[in-house]
Amino acid sequence: MEGSNQIADKRVERSKARVLTETYRQLVQSGVGGVSIDEVSRASGISKTTIYRHWPSRSALLIDACSRLGNTPDAPDTGNLRSDVRTLLARLSDQLQTANWSSVYPSIIDAAERDHEINTLQAGLHKNFMAPFETVIERAKARGEIPSDRDTSDLIAILVGPFFFRRWFSKEEMSVQFIHAIIETAIP
Amino acid sequence: MEGSNQIADKRVERSKARVLTETYRQLVQSGVGGVSIDEVSRASGISKTTIYRHWPSRSALLIDACSRLGNTPDAPDTGNLRSDVRTLLARLSDQLQTANWSSVYPSIIDAAERDHEINTLQAGLHKNFMAPFETVIERAKARGEIPSDRDTSDLIAILVGPFFFRRWFSKEEMSVQFIHAIIETAIP
Repeated sequence: MEGSNQIADKRVERSKARVLTETYRQLVQSGVGGVSIDEVSRASGISKTTIYRHWPSRSALLIDACSRLGNTPDAPDTGNLRSDVRTLLARLSDQLQTANWSSVYPSIIDAAERDHEINTLQAGLHKNFMAPFETVIERAKARGEIPSDRDTSDLIAILVGPFFFRRWFSKEEMSVQFIHAIIETAIP
Repeated sequence: MEGSNQIADKRVERSKARVLTETYRQLVQSGVGGVSIDEVSRASGISKTTIYRHWPSRSALLIDACSRLGNTPDAPDTGNLRSDVRTLLARLSDQLQTANWSSVYPSIIDAAERDHEINTLQAGLHKNFMAPFETVIERAKARGEIPSDRDTSDLIAILVGPFFFRRWFSKEEMSVQFIHAIIETAIP
C-alpha cells in the first residue's frame, strides 16, 4: 500500500506543479488581475475542485506563485559602504529593466491596496528585496563608517526610492551617472 | 429646431456625466482593473452602444475619468528652495495618505505596463504631479541658490522617490522628521 500512496503523492505534486506553473505564466503575462482560476484550471487540465483543495483562495494560489518571483539576493561585503551600495544599485537597476518581477510588481502593489493577504505577501517580498541594503548599512555602522544613529530605513528610502520612481513612475533612464548621483547625495 | 437640438445636446451631456461619475466611482473603489463597461452601463442606465459612441474604447473612458483624479497643484514661491520643497513634500505626504488618487494610482501604474493608452495617460498625470517641483527647482537655479548644472530630474527623483517608496512599497510613516531628513540629504 505504501507504493501506491507514494504514486498518489507524486501525482498530487505533479498536479500542484502544473497549477503553479500555469498561474506563474498568467501572472507574468497579465499581472495579478489577469490570473483566473477558471483559466488556470482549463490550461493546466486540473479541476477547480482539486485547485481549491490545495489553495483555499485565489490569493493563496497567487502567494505561492509569487514566491517564484524573487530569490533572496546576497549582500556584498567589500568593507566600503559606497562600493557595496554601488553593487546593489547596479543590480537593482538591471533587474528593474529586465526581470519578470519588475513588470509584475505593480499588479501586486495594486492588489495589496484592497486585499489583505496580498498586502501581507507584498510586505514579505519587500522585506526580502531590501534585506541586503539593510545588511550593508548595518555593517557600515558597525565599522564606524557612518554614524550609528543614522536612520537605516530613511537611508534605504533615499537610496532605493529614486530607482522605483524612475522604473514605474517617471520612466526615465537609470544610467551609471544616475547611480553615481544617488550615492553621492545619500552617502556624502 | 434649434431648441430641440439644445435639449438633445443637454441630454447627451447629462448621459456623459452619468457615465463618467459611475466610472470614477468604480475606479476609486476597485482601481483600473475593476472598471467594467457592462457594470458602468447597468449602474448609470446608459446603454453600452451610447457609451461606445462617446468613448471608442474602455481605455478612452478611463482616461476621461482619471482626469478627475488630480488638479494641477500650484508651486509655492518663498524665495528659498528648501522652504518651497518643504511645502510641496508636506502636501505630497498628506495627499499620499488621504487622497483618492493615492489608492487608485497603483492600478494606473499596473495597467500602464500593458496598455499603451493608459501608459500615455500615466505619463501626463506624472508630468502634472511633478510640475511644481520642476518650477521651484528652476527658480532656485535662476536665483543662483543651487548650481545651474545640477540635474533637475535627478533631484526630483531624490526628493519624491522616497515618498512614493514609503506609500506604496515599504508602507512606513511619512513624518515631519522624514520630510526633514529627505530635504537635508537632497539639498545640503
